[in-house]
Amino acid sequence: MARAYDPLFITSDNSPIDVPSPSSSSSMTLTKDELKRIAAYKAVDFVKSNMVLGLGTGSTAKHAVDRIGELLRQGKLVNIVGIPTSKKTQEQALSLNIPLSDLDAHPVVDLSIDGADEVDPCLNLVKGRGGSLLREKMIEGASKKFVVIVDESKMVKHIGGSKMALPVEIVPFCWKFTAERLRRVMEGYGCEAKLRLGGEKGEAFVTDNGNYIVDMYLEKDMGDLRVVSDEILRLPGVVEHGMFLDMASTVIIAGELGVKIKNKHISCIFLFFFWWVLGEREDYYAL
Amino acid sequence: MARAYDPLFITSDNSPIDVPSPSSSSSMTLTKDELKRIAAYKAVDFVKSNMVLGLGTGSTAKHAVDRIGELLRQGKLVNIVGIPTSKKTQEQALSLNIPLSDLDAHPVVDLSIDGADEVDPCLNLVKGRGGSLLREKMIEGASKKFVVIVDESKMVKHIGGSKMALPVEIVPFCWKFTAERLRRVMEGYGCEAKLRLGGEKGEAFVTDNGNYIVDMYLEKDMGDLRVVSDEILRLPGVVEHGMFLDMASTVIIAGELGVKIKNKHISCIFLFFFWWVLGEREDYYAL
Repeated sequence: MARAYDPLFITSDNSPIDVPSPSSSSSMTLTKDELKRIAAYKAVDFVKSNMVLGLGTGSTAKHAVDRIGELLRQGKLVNIVGIPTSKKTQEQALSLNIPLSDLDAHPVVDLSIDGADEVDPCLNLVKGRGGSLLREKMIEGASKKFVVIVDESKMVKHIGGSKMALPVEIVPFCWKFTAERLRRVMEGYGCEAKLRLGGEKGEAFVTDNGNYIVDMYLEKDMGDLRVVSDEILRLPGVVEHGMFLDMASTVIIAGELGVKIKNKHISCIFLFFFWWVLGEREDYYAL
Repeated sequence: MARAYDPLFITSDNSPIDVPSPSSSSSMTLTKDELKRIAAYKAVDFVKSNMVLGLGTGSTAKHAVDRIGELLRQGKLVNIVGIPTSKKTQEQALSLNIPLSDLDAHPVVDLSIDGADEVDPCLNLVKGRGGSLLREKMIEGASKKFVVIVDESKMVKHIGGSKMALPVEIVPFCWKFTAERLRRVMEGYGCEAKLRLGGEKGEAFVTDNGNYIVDMYLEKDMGDLRVVSDEILRLPGVVEHGMFLDMASTVIIAGELGVKIKNKHISCIFLFFFWWVLGEREDYYAL
């Protein structure tokens, strides 16, 4: 049963949520993975029978795909078509007997569920630290509703604020040249650019599309993200970047105090109100 | 010797230009390939010893690469480094013993010479009908000077005006979906989108980067090309498009009446003058 330890732990119906057991200590502290699982299960509440679903990639999305498979097996969901955002998710979904298709056959997706590496106060995202940013952006951009699931550590004041990577997918041809051009485009934000390595012998990580990833590490707020996005995309050699701007409709945030659900419109009005009236606040994302 | 049949046949020095013999008839009519060769040889006049050169791809650029190889062999050029824009050009240059490198080792290119499929009055180009648009854009965009060589049939009033293809390189993953999104972005211009085929068995043409090409056929002037460029590049799944905007510094145009050389700045001032004072003219590209 859902653990009723906090009124913020919102459920939209009475179906039981299989919350993991507390860790071996008797404290209420949940691990990051347990928080991810709680958010993922909450997101699956949005899934209805007969939907075409975008299936995300990464450690958080994996829990959602597992849950969808479980509900299909139990007969609580029927006639689902999944569109996997990576070869890895495709394998997982196949192992769970989730019927699969692709965007060519289903160009409109009812709902996508996926994790994110960063979420800013306007629900702009960084994704792609798992390496699937291009397919994720194609599928989630084709979705009527895009539900993002994160633990609270992923909430940032501004994109790049976690000091972790903003990934950019580039063609392998002359990648050093492209990485250097990327660094120069973003050097005003204190940027470092590093090729992502992934092989056993230290070779470059290769995406499902046969490309490389350059990870950009930022020191400063980039300001108008749409301007920066266009500047990056104009560089020949760049295939896609990991900023998902104005795409998420809902973000489900699992934290020690429960689950918060933020919807695009309300959060931004709320944020602008705080900016205007009160200035920046530490708890900017609490609804 | 250069054929002095017209005062417009400009040469910048006294070096002989090996103009092909007239066709078998005694008329002065030159074939398209002969015109391409004349333009290419004129472009190679810009090449000096010790330069890093971007070597273009296609039937016109091939003549320029041949000419550079010939001048190296004759000792009239020394210490040239070539950066080929395709595997095909790389093979040609190697067969001519032109020393080669890449953008990673030489991120600044002194001069690039390449053909184009269309040239508009402001020297914006369409390129990529030969399939090498991405590497061409990377190398030519890194060049201090970019000389474009065409026969006069390539001059158009506006990009897309030849009713031939505007190529867009896309990732193979769900290409139908991306092609349809491209068509919809450009449907205001009467656009059709077709996957380029290239294999013996009717399969998709594959670029040097492992991607597909969608050819866009346009009916109308797109107006502000930078706006359309950004709209195309924002589509996830698009790698690059074949519009080369504000990149050419000089265009050499071979026609029946001789060779015309157009430089970016002068042509555009001239065009704006005509737009302002006289409206559109049929002979807009004659200087």
